[in-house]
Amino acid sequence: MNAPVDPRFAARCRESFARQKAMTLIGARLTAVEPGATEIALPYRDDLTQQKGFVHGGIIGMIADTACGYAAFSLMPADCSLVTVEYKINILAPARGALVARGEVVKAGRSLTVARAEVYAEDGKHIATMQQTLMMLPDTPDTPE
Amino acid sequence: MNAPVDPRFAARCRESFARQKAMTLIGARLTAVEPGATEIALPYRDDLTQQKGFVHGGIIGMIADTACGYAAFSLMPADCSLVTVEYKINILAPARGALVARGEVVKAGRSLTVARAEVYAEDGKHIATMQQTLMMLPDTPDTPE
Amino acid sequence: MNAPVDPRFAARCRESFARQKAMTLIGARLTAVEPGATEIALPYRDDLTQQKGFVHGGIIGMIADTACGYAAFSLMPADCSLVTVEYKINILAPARGALVARGEVVKAGRSLTVARAEVYAEDGKHIATMQQTLMMLPDTPDTPE
Amino acid sequence: MNAPVDPRFAARCRESFARQKAMTLIGARLTAVEPGATEIALPYRDDLTQQKGFVHGGIIGMIADTACGYAAFSLMPADCSLVTVEYKINILAPARGALVARGEVVKAGRSLTVARAEVYAEDGKHIATMQQTLMMLPDTPDTPE
Repeated sequence: MNAPVDPRFAARCRESFARQKAMTLIGARLTAVEPGATEIALPYRDDLTQQKGFVHGGIIGMIADTACGYAAFSLMPADCSLVTVEYKINILAPARGALVARGEVVKAGRSLTVARAEVYAEDGKHIATMQQTLMMLPDTPDTPE
Repeated sequence: MNAPVDPRFAARCRESFARQKAMTLIGARLTAVEPGATEIALPYRDDLTQQKGFVHGGIIGMIADTACGYAAFSLMPADCSLVTVEYKINILAPARGALVARGEVVKAGRSLTVARAEVYAEDGKHIATMQQTLMMLPDTPDTPE
Repeated sequence: MNAPVDPRFAARCRESFARQKAMTLIGARLTAVEPGATEIALPYRDDLTQQKGFVHGGIIGMIADTACGYAAFSLMPADCSLVTVEYKINILAPARGALVARGEVVKAGRSLTVARAEVYAEDGKHIATMQQTLMMLPDTPDTPE
Repeated sequence: MNAPVDPRFAARCRESFARQKAMTLIGARLTAVEPGATEIALPYRDDLTQQKGFVHGGIIGMIADTACGYAAFSLMPADCSLVTVEYKINILAPARGALVARGEVVKAGRSLTVARAEVYAEDGKHIATMQQTLMMLPDTPDTPE
């Protein structure tokens, strides 16, 4: 249903992700990029936790946010940039191990895209669900100014 | 309006925050705790950024999430724990410097609390706004099991 | 996956829906109830529109909200009541005809349930998507006090 | 802070609101329009209720949604139209009487506006809080095509 307009979409997403130093900081990896869908893996680390030893809800939000973002970015023209307008996440269960976030585009509009991400634990447990809105900035580089 | 039931509320919030290794990882500090209100400061660091050099939206979400959480936690009994049910954040402007997140309780219910956080840049620019729902777990330690 | 604890779940949902005078006001009907899933149909009416003649976004929210609610209610014990904690909806496209809202449970917890609804036009166009949190009140009648 | 670009902003909002047949259906009135802020009053009616006799959460969402929308619309040029991108609402307390929704603009951007609404009961009880995103459509009539 979602056809990428840029044949280099996967490489473009991987290059952009590699520039996200915050993803490097937390150890997240972009493990799959399809047209309108992505997967981000986050190995468990002690320094990603909150006060009770579970993965911090904000860290779960970070990978879900980024999974949605690259799902949207994969469908966009090569010369545009993308900003997150807003997102909403429900934390469904506490997480104490490695996580995977799967993002997918719900609706790709002219300027706005709505995406969704599901976060799962290694045992398949559903950890979180996110709904996000993004806005395309045409003719804007996706690199630091 | 919001009277804390635990006179040690500020110390309890600071001790809990100090156990949040994810906050240490990103360099966030809990700079103020009042009954039903908190402030978290986040100095700018290059490793907190996304692909264009702005502070990652998920990092902004992390400090807003935590500011809401401790605003709620400050009003709770000493022997309870708190879980984030969900949050929704609008990113209002890109951020390229230090940030401060101010959380406050909107409604403290018996089991559910609704809180809000505003994130500002050093020049006063409004960066993000969050609305969050939290649930109190009575008789539950706020420490790793 | 979702097994109803109350064998009368469908009748109980229909009886509760029939007491929702706001659903009668807008002409919505509960057209399907499965364990953890519902469908609500809303015929088009001129008096449901906003200033441009499209179905009002708040009306779309009403049927999505109610579809989520009864999806959650279908899985609950007979002697409980349910309150909406919060919901978030993205309007994906304007609507000028009959609508159907399909609700389903994402996670049924002990006290909190997370549900989702998709709203479609008759031609299959995706009109809106909602993510919702509900709280069960045990031993509480679902009727006016 | 928010200066209206259209001196006829209040009349324009009232004329647009008067075209919202869904507002007429539920008996809502636009009782105040300031630059970037509005107030909508909803008298209690039995036919606005859910199964327990409280005002339906979706009805509460309708007036909050509309209060946000006209707060944003008041700041816009005369020749544009506005669409709701998304909203998120927390229901804080059940309501069994007349309601008032107060909307205000949080950030008015070039194309996107973020607004917020608070819904109160007559006795001052805080009933709901909403955070909303809207998009301006330039050079688009705010009337049926």
